[in-house]
Amino acid sequence: MDNYGSADAKKYWSKKAAELTPYVAGEQPARPMIKLNTNENAYPPSPKVAEAISAAQNLRLYPSTDAAGLREAIAEVEGISPDNIFCANGSDEALALAFMAFFDPDVQIKTMDVTYSFYPVWAKLFDLALHTVPLKADFSADVEGLCGGGGAVIANPNAPTGMAMPLGDIERITKNTRGAVIVDEAYVAFGAQSALPLIKNYENLAVVRTFSKSHSLAGLRVGYVAAQKGLVDALCAVKDSFNSYTVDMLAQAGAAAAIRDKAYYAKTTADIISERERVSSALRQMGYGVLESAANFIFVKCADAAAVFTALRESGILVRYFPGGRTNNYLRITIGTGDQMDALLEAMQKIKQ
Amino acid sequence: MDNYGSADAKKYWSKKAAELTPYVAGEQPARPMIKLNTNENAYPPSPKVAEAISAAQNLRLYPSTDAAGLREAIAEVEGISPDNIFCANGSDEALALAFMAFFDPDVQIKTMDVTYSFYPVWAKLFDLALHTVPLKADFSADVEGLCGGGGAVIANPNAPTGMAMPLGDIERITKNTRGAVIVDEAYVAFGAQSALPLIKNYENLAVVRTFSKSHSLAGLRVGYVAAQKGLVDALCAVKDSFNSYTVDMLAQAGAAAAIRDKAYYAKTTADIISERERVSSALRQMGYGVLESAANFIFVKCADAAAVFTALRESGILVRYFPGGRTNNYLRITIGTGDQMDALLEAMQKIKQ
Repeated sequence: MDNYGSADAKKYWSKKAAELTPYVAGEQPARPMIKLNTNENAYPPSPKVAEAISAAQNLRLYPSTDAAGLREAIAEVEGISPDNIFCANGSDEALALAFMAFFDPDVQIKTMDVTYSFYPVWAKLFDLALHTVPLKADFSADVEGLCGGGGAVIANPNAPTGMAMPLGDIERITKNTRGAVIVDEAYVAFGAQSALPLIKNYENLAVVRTFSKSHSLAGLRVGYVAAQKGLVDALCAVKDSFNSYTVDMLAQAGAAAAIRDKAYYAKTTADIISERERVSSALRQMGYGVLESAANFIFVKCADAAAVFTALRESGILVRYFPGGRTNNYLRITIGTGDQMDALLEAMQKIKQ
Repeated sequence: MDNYGSADAKKYWSKKAAELTPYVAGEQPARPMIKLNTNENAYPPSPKVAEAISAAQNLRLYPSTDAAGLREAIAEVEGISPDNIFCANGSDEALALAFMAFFDPDVQIKTMDVTYSFYPVWAKLFDLALHTVPLKADFSADVEGLCGGGGAVIANPNAPTGMAMPLGDIERITKNTRGAVIVDEAYVAFGAQSALPLIKNYENLAVVRTFSKSHSLAGLRVGYVAAQKGLVDALCAVKDSFNSYTVDMLAQAGAAAAIRDKAYYAKTTADIISERERVSSALRQMGYGVLESAANFIFVKCADAAAVFTALRESGILVRYFPGGRTNNYLRITIGTGDQMDALLEAMQKIKQ
């Protein structure tokens, strides 16, 4: 089949589209590989997810626009009101809408200099002034430097370092920011302290979560924001001006079943944490530098990270490499199953020799 | 459970969020009603959809970012290349991204004055200059008036009128617009001529489709755009700067199975068309004005539309009413099953007496 048009025809692009540098998601390999590159959970979702999905009927009807049943389930588990929850198509959508809903172009938004690389992409898309505060030499956050902005976005644990920020520091930044503070807790279940209990006290705090990592549901695209009603309403206003229904019926049903199965995820999360500690120790014994992780991935220092990335790839193991700058000598490696990590350790041992 | 914060606290909203007037989707009633208000399909989706959804495994993994398998299925059925297809979370997301990807704030974008009421909402969100061209007295389009813009967005069939625009008129507008022309074909399967074959010849033409109406999958949130590679790439650049994965794994699998089951949907579509004609005639015989519809809904003129809306609601029948302006004396009524439409006709007969 012929395809129409050429890739370089930007004649009908908006100026905005033409100036973007899109985020590049981790590769989904075509051939079978040990996939440790996009921080997916090593374990399948709770069996209750599939049950809930098959029970969801009436796909011919629109889903609840505000994910009422799912917000109910999250509220129940987190001990807050459904009115303080906003659901989205993954935490990436939640973050994109939050940038639009909370931040103005003329206001300085603070974030860290090594952090989730989607933040500058959203800033560019919405013409925001993102001011990056360099991490300290040990990759911990410069909390003082993160204070005093007109807004802030903080990943906790940070990515791709995996390092957690103490709750007191989050609170300090929240107190000392004039506008909204977004705390991106994509990986919080694996060891960091959540800022969710603080929303009670801070009108400007939005805590963003995802079902992709801790709840093994990357394929289902569900994230949420917990915040006071003022911020939730801003998110609704922007969402309802963009796309009324972004979380489909099956995703709403599956995610609600997942969050209610606390016992299942307590077990898988504990297994991942213990595997992370085992792998971190083993790599350190081989001489690799491994940052202290509170996530389901580790950030590993290598003499030549590009070479290790390539060698692992040749052994059928895919990890993530962010070349350049302060991440140039590091690889981000997702914690997989015990067998997968054994294969990784074996390969890393060989490379080291 | 207490909820935190008050609804009117706009202190931490962006200026943009504060000035929006969000789109209001049709009500999803809590109590059982005959639901003829959001143009959902009267019939359930093909049984192959549920099969495909149960077969979709590995929800712990991210879905294909560019919906590769689904694009393949659409390409196969539509006889175009997957490179000319872009998939999104419903056609509303496709349209939102298209407005961002194709239109600049300083350019006049033409649309009709009675049309899908989400267009002005997106224009406001992205600071676009939407210029509305009034429909003629008989609700047909002023094709001449729609020519000559820097961009255009045309619903065909139009909503909420249901009236189709001849393909020659779409082509004329496409030729006579300096920038991109978006043809929103949400309802095209029910009787209008698709502009899809024209994408071969026009670099500036984007045809937007949804699985919500013709494929009975409103609950699954899948839409797509067919266009030349230049426009598809613009959509990808914007999508990948907003949210990398918007169509989840189950939605991709379900929609692919749906579009391949052509025989099933040919039958349900034909049934809806024949029901539409039966109901239109019956209402005309009662003295109601009914516009010629090429959609799965009809636009019905009533002496007092607000009163008819309320009376129907009291009979347990929910339709859509857009008060004010040129739509003030009309109700938009979705074509449901034969039984549902019998109930509607009975109620409309009683109201008339």
